Amino acid sequence: MILRFQRGTTVRTMQSVRARIESEGLRVFESPETQRPILAIVDKTPPALFKELEARPDVENVAVPKASWRLIAPEYRDSQTRIRLGKVEIGPDTVIVIAGPCSVEGTDTMDEVARKVAKSGAQLLRGGAFKPRTSPYAFQGFGVEGLRQLKDAGEKFELPVVTEIMDASDVGAFLNHDIDCFQIGARNMQNFRLLKAVARAGKAVLLKRGLAATVEEWLYAAEYLAAGGCRDIILCERGIRTFETATRNTLDLTVLPLLREMTHLPVIVDPSHAAGLARLVAPLSRASIAVGAQGVAVEVHPTPSQARSDGPQALLPHELTSLVADARIQAAISGRRLA
Amino acid sequence: MILRFQRGTTVRTMQSVRARIESEGLRVFESPETQRPILAIVDKTPPALFKELEARPDVENVAVPKASWRLIAPEYRDSQTRIRLGKVEIGPDTVIVIAGPCSVEGTDTMDEVARKVAKSGAQLLRGGAFKPRTSPYAFQGFGVEGLRQLKDAGEKFELPVVTEIMDASDVGAFLNHDIDCFQIGARNMQNFRLLKAVARAGKAVLLKRGLAATVEEWLYAAEYLAAGGCRDIILCERGIRTFETATRNTLDLTVLPLLREMTHLPVIVDPSHAAGLARLVAPLSRASIAVGAQGVAVEVHPTPSQARSDGPQALLPHELTSLVADARIQAAISGRRLA
Amino acid sequence: MILRFQRGTTVRTMQSVRARIESEGLRVFESPETQRPILAIVDKTPPALFKELEARPDVENVAVPKASWRLIAPEYRDSQTRIRLGKVEIGPDTVIVIAGPCSVEGTDTMDEVARKVAKSGAQLLRGGAFKPRTSPYAFQGFGVEGLRQLKDAGEKFELPVVTEIMDASDVGAFLNHDIDCFQIGARNMQNFRLLKAVARAGKAVLLKRGLAATVEEWLYAAEYLAAGGCRDIILCERGIRTFETATRNTLDLTVLPLLREMTHLPVIVDPSHAAGLARLVAPLSRASIAVGAQGVAVEVHPTPSQARSDGPQALLPHELTSLVADARIQAAISGRRLA
Amino acid sequence: MILRFQRGTTVRTMQSVRARIESEGLRVFESPETQRPILAIVDKTPPALFKELEARPDVENVAVPKASWRLIAPEYRDSQTRIRLGKVEIGPDTVIVIAGPCSVEGTDTMDEVARKVAKSGAQLLRGGAFKPRTSPYAFQGFGVEGLRQLKDAGEKFELPVVTEIMDASDVGAFLNHDIDCFQIGARNMQNFRLLKAVARAGKAVLLKRGLAATVEEWLYAAEYLAAGGCRDIILCERGIRTFETATRNTLDLTVLPLLREMTHLPVIVDPSHAAGLARLVAPLSRASIAVGAQGVAVEVHPTPSQARSDGPQALLPHELTSLVADARIQAAISGRRLA
Repeated sequence: MILRFQRGTTVRTMQSVRARIESEGLRVFESPETQRPILAIVDKTPPALFKELEARPDVENVAVPKASWRLIAPEYRDSQTRIRLGKVEIGPDTVIVIAGPCSVEGTDTMDEVARKVAKSGAQLLRGGAFKPRTSPYAFQGFGVEGLRQLKDAGEKFELPVVTEIMDASDVGAFLNHDIDCFQIGARNMQNFRLLKAVARAGKAVLLKRGLAATVEEWLYAAEYLAAGGCRDIILCERGIRTFETATRNTLDLTVLPLLREMTHLPVIVDPSHAAGLARLVAPLSRASIAVGAQGVAVEVHPTPSQARSDGPQALLPHELTSLVADARIQAAISGRRLA
Repeated sequence: MILRFQRGTTVRTMQSVRARIESEGLRVFESPETQRPILAIVDKTPPALFKELEARPDVENVAVPKASWRLIAPEYRDSQTRIRLGKVEIGPDTVIVIAGPCSVEGTDTMDEVARKVAKSGAQLLRGGAFKPRTSPYAFQGFGVEGLRQLKDAGEKFELPVVTEIMDASDVGAFLNHDIDCFQIGARNMQNFRLLKAVARAGKAVLLKRGLAATVEEWLYAAEYLAAGGCRDIILCERGIRTFETATRNTLDLTVLPLLREMTHLPVIVDPSHAAGLARLVAPLSRASIAVGAQGVAVEVHPTPSQARSDGPQALLPHELTSLVADARIQAAISGRRLA
Repeated sequence: MILRFQRGTTVRTMQSVRARIESEGLRVFESPETQRPILAIVDKTPPALFKELEARPDVENVAVPKASWRLIAPEYRDSQTRIRLGKVEIGPDTVIVIAGPCSVEGTDTMDEVARKVAKSGAQLLRGGAFKPRTSPYAFQGFGVEGLRQLKDAGEKFELPVVTEIMDASDVGAFLNHDIDCFQIGARNMQNFRLLKAVARAGKAVLLKRGLAATVEEWLYAAEYLAAGGCRDIILCERGIRTFETATRNTLDLTVLPLLREMTHLPVIVDPSHAAGLARLVAPLSRASIAVGAQGVAVEVHPTPSQARSDGPQALLPHELTSLVADARIQAAISGRRLA
Repeated sequence: MILRFQRGTTVRTMQSVRARIESEGLRVFESPETQRPILAIVDKTPPALFKELEARPDVENVAVPKASWRLIAPEYRDSQTRIRLGKVEIGPDTVIVIAGPCSVEGTDTMDEVARKVAKSGAQLLRGGAFKPRTSPYAFQGFGVEGLRQLKDAGEKFELPVVTEIMDASDVGAFLNHDIDCFQIGARNMQNFRLLKAVARAGKAVLLKRGLAATVEEWLYAAEYLAAGGCRDIILCERGIRTFETATRNTLDLTVLPLLREMTHLPVIVDPSHAAGLARLVAPLSRASIAVGAQGVAVEVHPTPSQARSDGPQALLPHELTSLVADARIQAAISGRRLA
């Protein structure tokens, strides 16, 4: 259950209530909410305690979210999450474009891409240093050296950077290179140890939906991050597995408006991996923002045919510029702005 | 293969080439294309004949579509299909909104809905007279009486009407009631006898994608219609079956831009059946048009809670008005207009 | 609800109760059960009537099946359905093998196959006369002539025959040729008009599961048949559509033991269409019978490479003989026998 | 490509060929095959080198497996893999039953279960110490203490033990407790760092198929293990995600006979997680062995209703005894024996 106090309730009062609840052996979390104290009890609350809490005059209401996640439920906050990465704000009022190569492939290419990304008007730079590859013999990324190249390029063009972390033992390297946003990839969405380790790092996290994860499982994975102390969580829809083979995956835009009712977290869309074909990326990006996504993440490469991975789905720089322009229009007609 | 003649080639020349091909025992179709004659050979063309045809001076080029459908392939036309229903044009330059109740439920309700549909700015009226229902004990529609009520309401408010046909034996009743567009439902997409019978009726057809049909199967179903003589075919994506249970179906918007390369036929989207929830319909409609759909088909009811079927997904009339306004904006920013 | 009377209750008593229920405007069906009268009410029973019926001394118990089908529910019978086709019994004590070519292709081939099918020990002969084909240009079967060839071959070798019906208008031809069992194909599982027409024909029906039909939808399709008067219904699992592309479909054997609790109807398995490869058919047949299926339906052809359809999944005659031997063993160890 | 030398070729010759190949910068692996040397080249072999190797008189043949995995391909071995865990042999001639509770829950219960498992005739003991749970608030297992309890119980009843490892940092604890077989769970099938770490541990590995993994991805995950030095790999099918909600997952037995052609590794089936219901486990186990699986892994609990996880799918001890008896029969009729 979630306990929402009256506005004006003091932290001291809230702390005493918290102590009362914990004395029953229940686990309690405090919302970072500033307008009022909010507490989430994650264990089953005994009926007597439930009534006692509900009856307190300083409690405005108690909410029981439909599902059993708590910290990411809308009821745990007074407004949707706003995340700040450098000058970029991700949240209900803004639309972001994250762009970059599938893999970091060397300083020169990385700098060239970053320049184009900055110029296009996109807000964040992406690029894979640790690559999860189906085959053990495929290129597995530049590793820590890739982190350095990505961050250097990001700093040169004032772009916060996002990149995937594949193992708890790499958290230190990510922190050393001041990676702004840690990405949890689709294949690791239920790597619960990794979720716990990344949550402790105190950085923003981009959590991709698993290849065939239900919305419920995805939100529970986000709850793992939240329960571990992470507040800045961005969900990223990237297509699910279906019987249809005409496209690589099927982008599940149907759940986007539903997610808005299930969580206070921002949700973006990665159309590149769903489509698998660059020419589908622009229309799918427009559709994503039209349906309510807070942004898109796309792949871009100066010469896609030479990319070390996923070339067929990479945009050319001028296509990215056009995509950002479209995003600006879609943001505007929905009363938002590019971040 | 598809044989595209030079512009200016006479019908007489084309007919003699056609006779030549048929003399080899191959089946040939003539395109309705006005800019030049185009022939499609649907059987495998022997290499010698292929070369002979390709070498003719009056042949501009021969095309071999990637898939083995012919009459719906882009190569069979010089431009995308334009369909006219009354004053409404469906095609590359326009966006349409089809609206109406799930089931026709009586003259009064039908008239009330039709008035609201007309007022909202939607272009076509829908409503089910023959209802395919999972259970044999569920309401199966008003049948022929429903056709009459629907058509009457359409005439009163100058809206062409679309409704589902479930069996070849009903073609006569549909023609008698001058139904403007025959809908083939998802469950009948591969009811090949029905496709053949409907094709012969000479009316426009709205072909829904099967519940779990691949794009390829869907296009072959359209080819059945085309091979039977039907030219005015509208494809309708309505969501596919996936493991996700948060929504009724998963709208497959990912294939929309791909369909543009696979066929000259217009494609619209039915977000009501995919979402199963009225409040998801507006954002999904925006996304559908943003991704390139030529229209949307939605359900509307004056009092959804009293609808005889699918109430939870029906819009209120004022929500339809707002949806049409959104469609107008999305049409405009993509260089199109409401039909 | 289902009303089970005490053993020994007279038909007269039952009829008066039936009249009482119908006087409330509810639709009632009588079970063919011989051990006692059983009635199924398919509309929602008002609470007062429910109590009244439950309280009658001649009523042993009232059952409310979990799902809202009635006539195919286990509660509607005292034992599982037994179907007799010629000398063959299909039901809880027996295992059947249905075999034959994908398409009927001519008298000579048909006779040759039938001879081999009879010799192998299989009990029923199959072969498609009307073929549902994805492409309008593919071979669509020999039609009525195919029915004749199939039936002639069946009579020559004393094998009852099973073949697919695709349209209500063919029922007459099927009856004229004395087809023993009408097959409803996967693509027509929810062709509700066809289900109603076939039910009226009074013959046994083999109902294939739709390409992506849920078990619930499949059972409702069977209920359409039952509500139309058909008693001899055989369900046939043939693989469902999944993301896996290594095989044509994924045979859903997981639901087989569950079906036993959901219906009194026999269930068989068609492993040929699921696998798409002949060499997978034998092990999948063994698994089907091991998991509880009452039989299998497989394709066989003297020279698969020359089959007009689905050659790659057809067994050779000697492979069929071996498959029947395996079926006999699996039947024996589960306390059953070949039919 | 895979290079198969003549029988009798010396290790010295093979080593010189290997050096020749490596001098071209290609990665080479040596098969543990005893009948002849076999080398696998995992990078693309230049045509000239390919011809040179093929032409050598001591090379019997070069094979290019259909897919690009190498070390798990049938061509890399002269016979199917045989794995020995204590006295138990897993391979082409045997059938195994792995049984135990979903979670290790305390010494007493563990010992009781182990006694029953041993008595039933099952060969291996399973039990989860580290539990991957969808919710962060659910019971996450006893951790290292659970490893100890499981191993103690295994030793007491002479049963080798299998348990899931969730993170590379736990490899030490697994080795300290002499866990006989490390299980990689479905959610971690593509946790590539974990695969690499576990491969280095030198123990047998049970690799579950991912929740919606294709066979191809699953085999590549096994190749990660093999490339990291692991030879004793057991594949475990556990059901895939489909649209069907009647059962928890859909067991994909259709691919079992196909896997036999794709790899030399043993494959077992876990019917408990697919079915989600204990009463489906026995028939699905019979089907699994009938279709060719080398064993099954099932859950058992003395009082399922009190199990800390997955109670509804746990067998009672006497049901396990019956399941082992069935497995013995299915093994016998396919010319195999219980391990």
